[in-house]
Amino acid sequence: MGKIICTGLGPGDPDLMSVRSDRLIRGAAHVAYFRKLGRKGQARRIVDGMLAQGVTEYPMEYPVTTELPFDSPEYIDALARFYDDWADRLAALAQTAEVVVLCEGDPFFYGSFMHLYTRLQGRAVVEVVPGITGMTGCWNASGTPITWGDDVLTVLMGTLPEADLLRHMQAADALVVMKTGRNLPRVRRALEQAGRLDQAWLVERGTMPDQRIARLADVDAADCPYFAIVLVHGHGRRPELGGVE
Amino acid sequence: MGKIICTGLGPGDPDLMSVRSDRLIRGAAHVAYFRKLGRKGQARRIVDGMLAQGVTEYPMEYPVTTELPFDSPEYIDALARFYDDWADRLAALAQTAEVVVLCEGDPFFYGSFMHLYTRLQGRAVVEVVPGITGMTGCWNASGTPITWGDDVLTVLMGTLPEADLLRHMQAADALVVMKTGRNLPRVRRALEQAGRLDQAWLVERGTMPDQRIARLADVDAADCPYFAIVLVHGHGRRPELGGVE
Repeated sequence: MGKIICTGLGPGDPDLMSVRSDRLIRGAAHVAYFRKLGRKGQARRIVDGMLAQGVTEYPMEYPVTTELPFDSPEYIDALARFYDDWADRLAALAQTAEVVVLCEGDPFFYGSFMHLYTRLQGRAVVEVVPGITGMTGCWNASGTPITWGDDVLTVLMGTLPEADLLRHMQAADALVVMKTGRNLPRVRRALEQAGRLDQAWLVERGTMPDQRIARLADVDAADCPYFAIVLVHGHGRRPELGGVE
Repeated sequence: MGKIICTGLGPGDPDLMSVRSDRLIRGAAHVAYFRKLGRKGQARRIVDGMLAQGVTEYPMEYPVTTELPFDSPEYIDALARFYDDWADRLAALAQTAEVVVLCEGDPFFYGSFMHLYTRLQGRAVVEVVPGITGMTGCWNASGTPITWGDDVLTVLMGTLPEADLLRHMQAADALVVMKTGRNLPRVRRALEQAGRLDQAWLVERGTMPDQRIARLADVDAADCPYFAIVLVHGHGRRPELGGVE
């Protein structure tokens, strides 16, 4: 009787994955990971040099989007079939083998693995090993605490409508905006309307050797990869009362 | 020339700290950590069995609160002097030695270390190693993704006024409430007013062998330790579009 173990890889630096994920990945005979067709994939890149000799790799390649709009019913359907297919294959493999699935950041925090996780319920033993989230790597790279005292933190996706972004940006002390990329102009407009653009930072590849940190106000809107994260740090609401009771 | 390295310990299970924190802690000659007077302290407990022989320990014991109200000017002043004093001692030590400071969860996410970090700027070399946050350990223990798709996540402190709690609870998809303890009745009332009490879970010591998970509606208000975390999971806003672009 095998099982599926989804290991959180953390923010990118392999030295920042958990002791447990590190041990499981080094010992794995079967390793699966998501990637785009024709790419090595970020999850696979993080474990470079860690995999055992003779490991079997299962690159789970997303269906191609060039022919179809990203949000078309046809593409959404293709994506559902892709997850169905891989859930079937992993469930079959897990009858006899232990399969380690690699997942950037933390698997339960906006992770693609959840699309397999829901499909695997009752069909295979599934364990999830948490990881340091990508946003934690980004605020660590910024060298400044993201929250202290009684700060309210809100995590937003750049894909949300501008009015929703604005409302949340006005209400919270600290902000994290993910899925930026082509949504960056909208994110920037909302931050400006909320009066917070001057406090916003764009962080790419936090904790990686080529990490980049810039004031969002100084970044060209055309120059923002999808996985860059926008941060606005909290200033500490009643900071002197934090941490002790 | 020495330095100060604050290592995030993660949510509690020592197997979930990062490879880097694990290595630094096992190799440390000087280890400092916060604790209450007369207690072993949770940070110190997590590294039980990991410290090298001959290590020098520096328990940083919070001033006693029994004589003074927690939010009195006198106590806040005592706390400031406590942080001043330890910043001086660590800065002096870091002239010649490497000092590892233990910090539960992630040091830059509501961590007490930030009170030393701000005081140490320009006086010592300070490095911070991120960790898995306590909330990540709690949602992992719950066995359910906290967020997917375009969910909005808001992190709140139970110390906030009830009206503020309610407003944020109504606006976000997924919720994390920290610093519960004696604030739990207020947190529960706000969740009930927001119509979300039935979806709320209370998680204690997530990832630890004695972890406890219960529906908040079933928990006795008198039975809630300060470090228990309340979770409301997101349901996935436009989930099919998550993770691919």
